[in-house]
Amino acid sequence: MDIRQLILKQNEIEAMPGEKRVHFLNPNAERIRKSLGDRVGLKNIGVHLIYTEPGKDTTEYHMHYYEEECIYVLSGRGELIINNETFSFAQGDFVGLPANTASHALKNTGNETLVCLVMGQRLEQDVADYPDKGKRLYRNSGQWDLVDVSDIHDPRK
Amino acid sequence: MDIRQLILKQNEIEAMPGEKRVHFLNPNAERIRKSLGDRVGLKNIGVHLIYTEPGKDTTEYHMHYYEEECIYVLSGRGELIINNETFSFAQGDFVGLPANTASHALKNTGNETLVCLVMGQRLEQDVADYPDKGKRLYRNSGQWDLVDVSDIHDPRK
Amino acid sequence: MDIRQLILKQNEIEAMPGEKRVHFLNPNAERIRKSLGDRVGLKNIGVHLIYTEPGKDTTEYHMHYYEEECIYVLSGRGELIINNETFSFAQGDFVGLPANTASHALKNTGNETLVCLVMGQRLEQDVADYPDKGKRLYRNSGQWDLVDVSDIHDPRK
Amino acid sequence: MDIRQLILKQNEIEAMPGEKRVHFLNPNAERIRKSLGDRVGLKNIGVHLIYTEPGKDTTEYHMHYYEEECIYVLSGRGELIINNETFSFAQGDFVGLPANTASHALKNTGNETLVCLVMGQRLEQDVADYPDKGKRLYRNSGQWDLVDVSDIHDPRK
Repeated sequence: MDIRQLILKQNEIEAMPGEKRVHFLNPNAERIRKSLGDRVGLKNIGVHLIYTEPGKDTTEYHMHYYEEECIYVLSGRGELIINNETFSFAQGDFVGLPANTASHALKNTGNETLVCLVMGQRLEQDVADYPDKGKRLYRNSGQWDLVDVSDIHDPRK
Repeated sequence: MDIRQLILKQNEIEAMPGEKRVHFLNPNAERIRKSLGDRVGLKNIGVHLIYTEPGKDTTEYHMHYYEEECIYVLSGRGELIINNETFSFAQGDFVGLPANTASHALKNTGNETLVCLVMGQRLEQDVADYPDKGKRLYRNSGQWDLVDVSDIHDPRK
Repeated sequence: MDIRQLILKQNEIEAMPGEKRVHFLNPNAERIRKSLGDRVGLKNIGVHLIYTEPGKDTTEYHMHYYEEECIYVLSGRGELIINNETFSFAQGDFVGLPANTASHALKNTGNETLVCLVMGQRLEQDVADYPDKGKRLYRNSGQWDLVDVSDIHDPRK
Repeated sequence: MDIRQLILKQNEIEAMPGEKRVHFLNPNAERIRKSLGDRVGLKNIGVHLIYTEPGKDTTEYHMHYYEEECIYVLSGRGELIINNETFSFAQGDFVGLPANTASHALKNTGNETLVCLVMGQRLEQDVADYPDKGKRLYRNSGQWDLVDVSDIHDPRK
């Protein structure tokens, strides 16, 4: 293994092309992602630079049942929505989303690119709720099962 | 739960007192830690701001068997040692340490505080090697067992 | 802790009342369960004596995505169905069901009680398919979500 | 995959040669093992028929920190030692060893072969204590590290 590949110098990060991603439930959640973690071979934590343009969402409003996630703002400003409350969120601010605790979304409400360092666990299995869409996603070893919450029932009840 | 406590505004982070930590195997590995992750209730990933003064080490040279770790430099400059090779490491640079891959250490070789965002998994169980000290640490559910590598043997051999 | 409670003598096992259980998808899957493992405090493996009367099913035809399971027949005889093939299954026989490998069901086709020792993992999260019913069950930390397979789709496709 | 290989008929189990195993810390812990679980492809639970001759030990006195284990006696009789108390243990008896709870050993004190069905978790990582030998074994992804307990210390103390 070439040890040097574990390091990404600032100019190498700048030169990374980034990957345009649109959330499957929200066409306005459109962002550029540079996955620093993937690039250096991390498997169990995701570490991404996320670039969101003014007016765009960084992600669809959601909550993970198992995966912890957090966001540190490197530059720009936006609005963070947590459990339907809105908070300003700008350079130098941090938010943590413990599992199964609160839904969140993030929107660039400023007039420059919102640049965030987003970090989170990458588990083999997770469940995520998308409350504004009435959807639940079960993720199991690469299989993604999306269902309407109204189609789910507990057989014990 | 008070949702507001999931957020740390820049001025709140600045106002956090920080905790002085000295590595148990290296008195020169002396740094101030502000644990953003702990403060907002993250349990399975550690997310820390680490402040290291000129001439000090950020950590003793080590490798984790299971926990992935990564470092993003917010300001300052230093030297990163990975598997006995030395690399310059400064503002905007990133390094990832996949589990069981490479030992690393980090020293502030500049003349201002080295400020890093350090992120990593927090597993119930891990093993870490400290090659320069000939020590191995087994961490199991809060129990820390430190041994000399020369006192270990494989009973199958 | 009273160490003696870790042991179940044969006469204590006989005296256990057993719990009548009917599968939520199959009223003919009716059996008496004595959970030896629960009784002695095991949490991560289930170890049960299962008594199935002639004509009854031990379980609904199913496959686990993650939990391994196995059955050892202590007395009686029945028919095992694995991936739609039928096998005789009687005293002294063993079957293992590696995760995500094959669906199985078991029926008492003899004329005495079928007594099995059933052992399996108990994971925080699992998924099970019930192919004859077109249902999938997501089990996550005590939450049971049952859905029709026809209501599931992969948002990436 | 040939589904038939998931099943072991009684005569196939009888015909399995068995593997002679001697515990690395106890030459008197000598037993024949037929691993039913391995034979059918189970990976995360071990399910073994263990044959111990009169006067021999089934295992060295030990405690697992993480792996749960249990024993069901199919025939014969012996003595079970749990936390230094001795209990008779014979056909039809069951014992469960929740993790980190109690040390145990088992000896055939009868005059016929002691046949047990031994089941347990198989975890990537475990720690086991051998109190009568003053040893601790760290097992991590196939690496076995055996140390004298007297060579271990907690660096925080």
